[in-house]
Amino acid sequence: MAKRSKQEKLDLVARRVRAFQDFPKKGIFFRDICPVLKDPEALTATIDLFEEHVKQTCPDVDLIVGVDARGFLFGPLLSQRLGIGFVLVRKKGKLPGPTVSVSYSLEYGEAEAEVQEDAVSPGQKVVLIDDLLATGGTLLAAYELMKKQQAVVLGCLVLIELKALNGSRKLKNCNVFSLLQY
Amino acid sequence: MAKRSKQEKLDLVARRVRAFQDFPKKGIFFRDICPVLKDPEALTATIDLFEEHVKQTCPDVDLIVGVDARGFLFGPLLSQRLGIGFVLVRKKGKLPGPTVSVSYSLEYGEAEAEVQEDAVSPGQKVVLIDDLLATGGTLLAAYELMKKQQAVVLGCLVLIELKALNGSRKLKNCNVFSLLQY
Repeated sequence: MAKRSKQEKLDLVARRVRAFQDFPKKGIFFRDICPVLKDPEALTATIDLFEEHVKQTCPDVDLIVGVDARGFLFGPLLSQRLGIGFVLVRKKGKLPGPTVSVSYSLEYGEAEAEVQEDAVSPGQKVVLIDDLLATGGTLLAAYELMKKQQAVVLGCLVLIELKALNGSRKLKNCNVFSLLQY
Repeated sequence: MAKRSKQEKLDLVARRVRAFQDFPKKGIFFRDICPVLKDPEALTATIDLFEEHVKQTCPDVDLIVGVDARGFLFGPLLSQRLGIGFVLVRKKGKLPGPTVSVSYSLEYGEAEAEVQEDAVSPGQKVVLIDDLLATGGTLLAAYELMKKQQAVVLGCLVLIELKALNGSRKLKNCNVFSLLQY
């Protein structure tokens, strides 16, 4: 396989994202990333782009922190590329042992996010990852969990950013990097 | 890093699995895989072992199928190693577009699993993956979804098998491969 340029990789990923009107409820234009996962070259390109960004902007990152459930699809891949660990942020009640939690509001609903107390140590440098930045509620919750644990949040990676929902304004203290913007 | 033997890899993974009594409810002895994800060498070893097994037993696999949410942690890594696609089985209501679904009972509760109709084509050969085999309800649901789509299920991979719960008996039509047994 010929080596792809950054733009070719972005195009490859973009071609694999499809949209569904009125899912999961009326008025939501849902971006579906399943075809990215099903195409190994598109998934490789996605992780290549994330890896390149992290190596250029925050090569001293200690941990990748991914958000339940679709952040789990990309986070471990990126953490393996970087040779570092992956930490799970989950919905409340899913993680055993001592945890810390924060409440947040979603694009459609309310929820609580949790991380294990021993997952991140004070001063550790982390990068957050999720599939999508909409209103930013979930990622802000992950950000706040990291601050509670006195971690240093170097940035936040998403495959897709829905610009009209202004999620990056909510995450103003966090450098947001998105591969695709709609 | 020196090349590890299969047994050394298994030992490395086993050392990173920890147990919590009475989680998520009384009487459940919960195996926590978070430390495996946090240790990049243990995660590499996990995927090495899965990859080796698939290459030896079913090298003609077309797709890896992972179960929401912890199957997402390992499935994309394995699919990338094999150069094939990854398909998501999710809880009902999470996947857009036309889907097929099946109901199943969990170790603690009831649920419905779904896959997108176009995720798998008739005759495609798939391998299922999840973190844990307990009673086998979730993986049986994934198996049944694949059969509905006329896929050929070559096997089922889990990091941990809880032998006393007899999940592999429920999955008797599927070759179950577990890294660790308790």
